[in-house]
Amino acid sequence: MKVGFIGLGKMGSGMARNLLKAGHNLIVYNRTRSHAEPLEREGAKVAAIPADAAGGVQVLITMLADDHAVEEMLTGENGAMEALAPGAVHISMSTISVALSRKLDQLHQEKQQCYVAAPVFGRPDAAAAAKLFIVAAAKPEHINECRTLFEAMGQKLFVVSDQPAAANLMKLSGNFLISTVIESLAETFALIRKAGHDPAKFLEVMTESLFNAPVYRNYGAMIASNKFEPAGFKLPLGLKDNRLVLAAAEENSVSMPIASLIRDRFLSALANGLGEQDWAAIARVSYENAGLK
Amino acid sequence: MKVGFIGLGKMGSGMARNLLKAGHNLIVYNRTRSHAEPLEREGAKVAAIPADAAGGVQVLITMLADDHAVEEMLTGENGAMEALAPGAVHISMSTISVALSRKLDQLHQEKQQCYVAAPVFGRPDAAAAAKLFIVAAAKPEHINECRTLFEAMGQKLFVVSDQPAAANLMKLSGNFLISTVIESLAETFALIRKAGHDPAKFLEVMTESLFNAPVYRNYGAMIASNKFEPAGFKLPLGLKDNRLVLAAAEENSVSMPIASLIRDRFLSALANGLGEQDWAAIARVSYENAGLK
Amino acid sequence: MKVGFIGLGKMGSGMARNLLKAGHNLIVYNRTRSHAEPLEREGAKVAAIPADAAGGVQVLITMLADDHAVEEMLTGENGAMEALAPGAVHISMSTISVALSRKLDQLHQEKQQCYVAAPVFGRPDAAAAAKLFIVAAAKPEHINECRTLFEAMGQKLFVVSDQPAAANLMKLSGNFLISTVIESLAETFALIRKAGHDPAKFLEVMTESLFNAPVYRNYGAMIASNKFEPAGFKLPLGLKDNRLVLAAAEENSVSMPIASLIRDRFLSALANGLGEQDWAAIARVSYENAGLK
Amino acid sequence: MKVGFIGLGKMGSGMARNLLKAGHNLIVYNRTRSHAEPLEREGAKVAAIPADAAGGVQVLITMLADDHAVEEMLTGENGAMEALAPGAVHISMSTISVALSRKLDQLHQEKQQCYVAAPVFGRPDAAAAAKLFIVAAAKPEHINECRTLFEAMGQKLFVVSDQPAAANLMKLSGNFLISTVIESLAETFALIRKAGHDPAKFLEVMTESLFNAPVYRNYGAMIASNKFEPAGFKLPLGLKDNRLVLAAAEENSVSMPIASLIRDRFLSALANGLGEQDWAAIARVSYENAGLK
Repeated sequence: MKVGFIGLGKMGSGMARNLLKAGHNLIVYNRTRSHAEPLEREGAKVAAIPADAAGGVQVLITMLADDHAVEEMLTGENGAMEALAPGAVHISMSTISVALSRKLDQLHQEKQQCYVAAPVFGRPDAAAAAKLFIVAAAKPEHINECRTLFEAMGQKLFVVSDQPAAANLMKLSGNFLISTVIESLAETFALIRKAGHDPAKFLEVMTESLFNAPVYRNYGAMIASNKFEPAGFKLPLGLKDNRLVLAAAEENSVSMPIASLIRDRFLSALANGLGEQDWAAIARVSYENAGLK
Repeated sequence: MKVGFIGLGKMGSGMARNLLKAGHNLIVYNRTRSHAEPLEREGAKVAAIPADAAGGVQVLITMLADDHAVEEMLTGENGAMEALAPGAVHISMSTISVALSRKLDQLHQEKQQCYVAAPVFGRPDAAAAAKLFIVAAAKPEHINECRTLFEAMGQKLFVVSDQPAAANLMKLSGNFLISTVIESLAETFALIRKAGHDPAKFLEVMTESLFNAPVYRNYGAMIASNKFEPAGFKLPLGLKDNRLVLAAAEENSVSMPIASLIRDRFLSALANGLGEQDWAAIARVSYENAGLK
Repeated sequence: MKVGFIGLGKMGSGMARNLLKAGHNLIVYNRTRSHAEPLEREGAKVAAIPADAAGGVQVLITMLADDHAVEEMLTGENGAMEALAPGAVHISMSTISVALSRKLDQLHQEKQQCYVAAPVFGRPDAAAAAKLFIVAAAKPEHINECRTLFEAMGQKLFVVSDQPAAANLMKLSGNFLISTVIESLAETFALIRKAGHDPAKFLEVMTESLFNAPVYRNYGAMIASNKFEPAGFKLPLGLKDNRLVLAAAEENSVSMPIASLIRDRFLSALANGLGEQDWAAIARVSYENAGLK
Repeated sequence: MKVGFIGLGKMGSGMARNLLKAGHNLIVYNRTRSHAEPLEREGAKVAAIPADAAGGVQVLITMLADDHAVEEMLTGENGAMEALAPGAVHISMSTISVALSRKLDQLHQEKQQCYVAAPVFGRPDAAAAAKLFIVAAAKPEHINECRTLFEAMGQKLFVVSDQPAAANLMKLSGNFLISTVIESLAETFALIRKAGHDPAKFLEVMTESLFNAPVYRNYGAMIASNKFEPAGFKLPLGLKDNRLVLAAAEENSVSMPIASLIRDRFLSALANGLGEQDWAAIARVSYENAGLK
């Protein structure tokens, strides 16, 4: 399939490479061109402007850092949206706001283009290994057109709704659940450490009984060891996603007290110089408040 | 082994029965005698007073509702502690406070008795099926004496410390983690419902990807269906355990903001007549606050 | 003095009238022209477009609902900023974001215009009675030029900084303090009512001892009577100001847990249909959560 | 009037002295006898045991640190309650739990003694100057008997209910309001300091406009200067009162989220070594979390 791919960061590079490997015909764009070079050597064409990654493709995929980047690539100067043919599909895989997803849906409809929201769960290593969990929402026929692409990038596809923004809401809700795991482990580990016991022992009990899920094992190990670098997912990105879930909740007049509390943790962590660390470093706020060094 | 067993509620009955099945010689006590009758028919002796369940046994097991019941059975009128022989072991399996566990440890030491704290994770069906997770802490030699008993009652034994109270702290911390799962699912489901989407679909995404742990599946299903009866674990018991973890945290000068927040949820749920429902019914507070019926 | 005045809502009308009474030469603009008519009868000129209220005046005053309205009036179509003469002063009295205030300061400097931030405390009756408390920040010489105007509109002028945005930050902080008063009274009244006692009696004790400030008396009376209409300051405006203080805090990486908690109250109140009531109606969330009807 | 007075701490000494000055016949008791000596020199008799301060008096006043001290003095060894004559009045002026107040009421009724709950607002200097605010609840005839005593100790008497425990609930609610003032000022000052502005300037604006109450001025000055020693009211006492209001709320199934949040502040402050400072030192938690030194 002829596919355009915009956004070759840690996630996007792995995803694009898996599409290449699966035999798709790829034209890629990245603001910092050098990031595109490895893929060029592997057979991708490199577009000079976003629009060139969208002209003539059946499917355009975007995998970018935030709302701002998505808007710039699609509707900014030399943006991709104008160049995308009627009937072609845009798969938006970035973690963006519900509001932007709804707006993109609207804009694509006006241009007779198809819009599929398909954010993912998984870190860069999962992207590289085609092990992403893909949460997609769109009209069934649009999703069907993209199935082979999803299969090349992920280990599992969830189709959650025919309204694209639902996928974004669920992605943000999922990230909120992860942040809750982090904060809840931080609070218990602070207590267990302060009482003179071993949080790693507690973590073992939990993950070998009721909480045998990777998210508890991985974040638990990080928080128990109190080491948050190198960051898998930097704290400001966590704050960004927290902001997006709170924005979606505000739009629906829903209060989410744990999300509010975690927002405060992010701010305290940033204020104390933890901005380069993994988002799990909000645990340090619990540790400091408990008087633990 | 000659074993005394005090407390034949939903949990204790199943545990005692598994000890009988494993061939142990059991003498049981329960305040409401009628609860002891099924076990009597299966071969257990029934004690008339708590002390009779402790006199002459190698191991005394208690599985009671709360601190108050444990203190009454052990040190109240006709209490078991006086009757327990020096060198005999008391395995305290109830979910009690860290402070009471420390006090029991002290009292048993003064009487040259052995004390093992061994609270469990698992609901009545797990108790009946000998599938409990047992979290034990005590001097290694005391735990070793009890291994065959633990094997008869549980699917897995975790030995977490040589200080008994550590096991109680970890049990309470574990229950706190479960309560955060409940509250975090409640907040996300409120958002997803309010936005017009299906929380069951979201739950499926989560439990088939990052959160594939029973605790998410079970509570998630209950909260998504908004049905909290019959109760597996009643709301006031959840409040009790929340109180105990907050007390342990206060003793260590540790703040646990999510635990504080969940305490408030329990109180609001009680105030709104949900005291007979499962503790997951705190989700109703999120639903009501979001204007969902 | 020749003064332009944009924004003739409940607050602005009273303020503009007081300037007229003090003998100033007033040209006013309001999007809905009819609001300007009473002032016209009292001697004000009425501008047809925002720019006309700024051309040729020594001082331009804006008193508008929110950031959006301020930006539209100043830099939108036929906006006032272009028309304001170099050396003329813009006094921004609306409750706006710190970020917008800083931006306006910058824009005015580029045009050699003077910018004074001077938000106010007080409700419409205080505006009408020239009893506002004015919190001003700007270069001293710019404030000095405006003193007679401030005297005509307020009972007291506080000059808090030479950086205009400081005044906006303090105004938002003050509104946050008021919201804290509301929420803290709501929580105590819920407790006192639930225990079967009279919150009005409690309020009397407090306001005749340590809390003898109008803000406790006024909001206390409203919350004790559980009547929130007619609204003096509508709930969505309260949410807006809460949002602005949280935004300022986020910009400075400061967590404000009470502000977060009150944000959740606003959302719950909105979700339960209280959007037309006074912002003190967040007390209803405390009442409902306590099971009070 | 013949009056017994138990509890000669910073508060009680001043109160007892004012009774002496007003011409009452005083017999005092304090666990540490030396605290009674100044009063002895001024004409009070000193009792050797609590019971001696109650035998033969018309009114017994207790002013002690906490529930435990009150119970010990009244119903412990040589306790005062047994010695108090039928028909005599016990005025309980300590800040104690609602539950203990109710229990004392019951016990006194059983002995045909009269019970008046009359906790106070005011610090030691107000006690010395007879400027306390007294919040009393009891049957009207019992309060009437004590009026001259209240006049000798306080500047104002509030009679809030005929159920004694109502006075204790209102005293605790009042202390909770003070704690919200502290926390709300702490959060705003953290923001204002972090933004580079002067919290003292902000405080001046607030206390000379909407918040012209002593509680804002006094705590505001302390928090703005970031100096919390010498302590007027030590942090652990603040935590104790917070615990009591939360206990009263729990008994009534009322959630008080700000009280929960402030509890967490107290714990964090204690964990960071602020236990000897004024309870307003919880502001340091806001400052630290904001990265302010």
